[in-house]
Amino acid sequence: MTRTVKLAVIPGDGIGPEVVAEAEKVLDAATAGSDVVFDKTRFSLGAGRYLETGDTLTDDDLAAIKSHDAIVLGAVGGVPGDPRLKDANIERGLLLKLRFELDHYVNLRPSKLYPGQPGPLADPGDIDFVVVREGTEGPYVGNGGSIRRGTPHEVANETSVNTAYGVERVVRFAFELAERRSKRLTLVHKTNVLVNAGSLWQRTVQEVAIGHPDVAVDYLHVDAATIFLVTNPGRFDVIVTDNLFGDILTDLAGAVTGGIGLAASGNINPSGEHPSMFEPVHGSAPDIAGTGTADPTAAIGSIALLLDHLGLRDEADRVSRAIEDDISERGAEPRTTAQVGDAIAARLQA
Amino acid sequence: MTRTVKLAVIPGDGIGPEVVAEAEKVLDAATAGSDVVFDKTRFSLGAGRYLETGDTLTDDDLAAIKSHDAIVLGAVGGVPGDPRLKDANIERGLLLKLRFELDHYVNLRPSKLYPGQPGPLADPGDIDFVVVREGTEGPYVGNGGSIRRGTPHEVANETSVNTAYGVERVVRFAFELAERRSKRLTLVHKTNVLVNAGSLWQRTVQEVAIGHPDVAVDYLHVDAATIFLVTNPGRFDVIVTDNLFGDILTDLAGAVTGGIGLAASGNINPSGEHPSMFEPVHGSAPDIAGTGTADPTAAIGSIALLLDHLGLRDEADRVSRAIEDDISERGAEPRTTAQVGDAIAARLQA
Ligand SMILES: CC(C)[C@H](C(=O)O)[C@@H](O)C(=O)O
Ligand SMILES: CC(C)[C@H](C(=O)O)[C@@H](O)C(=O)O
Repeated sequence: MTRTVKLAVIPGDGIGPEVVAEAEKVLDAATAGSDVVFDKTRFSLGAGRYLETGDTLTDDDLAAIKSHDAIVLGAVGGVPGDPRLKDANIERGLLLKLRFELDHYVNLRPSKLYPGQPGPLADPGDIDFVVVREGTEGPYVGNGGSIRRGTPHEVANETSVNTAYGVERVVRFAFELAERRSKRLTLVHKTNVLVNAGSLWQRTVQEVAIGHPDVAVDYLHVDAATIFLVTNPGRFDVIVTDNLFGDILTDLAGAVTGGIGLAASGNINPSGEHPSMFEPVHGSAPDIAGTGTADPTAAIGSIALLLDHLGLRDEADRVSRAIEDDISERGAEPRTTAQVGDAIAARLQA
Repeated sequence: MTRTVKLAVIPGDGIGPEVVAEAEKVLDAATAGSDVVFDKTRFSLGAGRYLETGDTLTDDDLAAIKSHDAIVLGAVGGVPGDPRLKDANIERGLLLKLRFELDHYVNLRPSKLYPGQPGPLADPGDIDFVVVREGTEGPYVGNGGSIRRGTPHEVANETSVNTAYGVERVVRFAFELAERRSKRLTLVHKTNVLVNAGSLWQRTVQEVAIGHPDVAVDYLHVDAATIFLVTNPGRFDVIVTDNLFGDILTDLAGAVTGGIGLAASGNINPSGEHPSMFEPVHGSAPDIAGTGTADPTAAIGSIALLLDHLGLRDEADRVSRAIEDDISERGAEPRTTAQVGDAIAARLQA
């Protein structure tokens, strides 16, 4: 009996299509001979599509994507400063729109320093933590505006919206993840300044903690958390935080674990009501697009998260191990995008 | 003819009084024999005062502080989790209140890696930049609230308020600073998500840049900026950014330059309408208070910023040089708070 997974593939812009090609290669290798079949639909979305048609994400696109079981995304965004994109906001209109419309309230971003992986820290120690970033609230809701725009009296506001409903569900997810890991959870916020949102987050963590007495909970202000990420990243296991703080912490975490060329992420809708979306943390890097130098490891890591999300734990573990082995045995010689994908895929066929 | 500077001194809580004592020692040494006399008033403010009297910052305190020419602050804040402080918010009610009431719209935070200073980065390169953090707007304005608090339907909002008036004045300050340094200015924001505030910041930088054609301007999203702070901090000279991003970046910057035990800051009102306030970036660290192990270097660095602000450039430079020499000649042997202060003061007397 075969299981068919309907997979929406959004290669996107810049290096997106290049890294997605390697991710697909690895997905095929990881599931070859298994009873899972991926039925793929390719969506042309991003700055390229916008420049051709003026569309960012139509209702039809969205409806079609929603009919899939999961999504793999490369990267979206055009060349910075391209005048033709002046009025487009591909990030908000496409990437964030997908996260919000598909209710991706868990943005899961693991950070692990693999043996042999060079990084910027002199003495990194063991780094292996996961950031559970809230994905549908906070300062990302687009709840802002400006008055008297362009005048000396302009006022521009941005409102961070946080709900008990939204905070509780992501905090629960983080506690459950901590149960399966080393049972340490750190809430990161800025409760001494953002007192209303901070209080909601803090009370929610305290309440959910009651049901998880074996999880050790601590709290850090976001500024202090960035310090620990460079002085003692080994102290972290599961971090739960809001949308904006999670954005900042995961880029920094990516850097300390060897670069965002390695950082994978899952935009998860745990209820399964909508398809979850798996993407590298990096962007479309138009400056190196077409040169064959983009590192596809992050995109391939997203495949491991996808497989895990689909309940294909063995396949997920095999991909993770293949990535880990590939990284630890990397020579000094630079490899092309395809060479990295081939090498990881080959480990799965072995 | 002597010049008398009325100086308000707020030692504060925890290690605050210990580091301020050393800062005063260095201030005395730096100005001994000069025609400047500091007329000091000591203010008992912070968690200690709150626990004694229930006051955080009274109108009388504020009026008295306002009658001074400048302020030196150690650190404020009680022991985290102290139940008696549950309803106090010393940070908002005292520290932020001072910054807002005294219109400290420039929060100046230099970051420099001194020769010989150990830090977390394997290959830090030359680090010498200044963050100009906006101090009176953004998500720090206290413009939030919650409804249905404590129920499953709670909504907690925080509004970031940004005005043309507020953004322009701090951006102008940053450009003028860049003119006196290596003429490179980086705006850090999150314009692709916080589109209203981000647009105001970006347009303001573009407009002010017209009057400073020799300053090279670039832009980074806050998440990308944290990456560069650990992979290539040497790329920065002057960073201008909003209140919250500046908070995060300067703690991280402090960490990469050897720890926030070294990071000084000035809360500046450039118009001179209200006294400016000089403080270390670190907090009150109640866990090490009384042990004599706190590093007073950041508090002493704030004295250099104070002297510079008062136009005492030579004295400021001498203090900066004494700090730099002290750091580069530091042995492995740990020194007490007073020993560090004595050593730096002695260099000024020499
Ligand atoms: C492109 C941008 C909107 C996005 C974000 O801020 O979430 C990106 O930085 C990320 O982290 O996925
Ligand atoms: C104590 C806190 C309110 C303060 C801030 O966030 O500004 C501190 O972190 C700082 O950077 O001076």
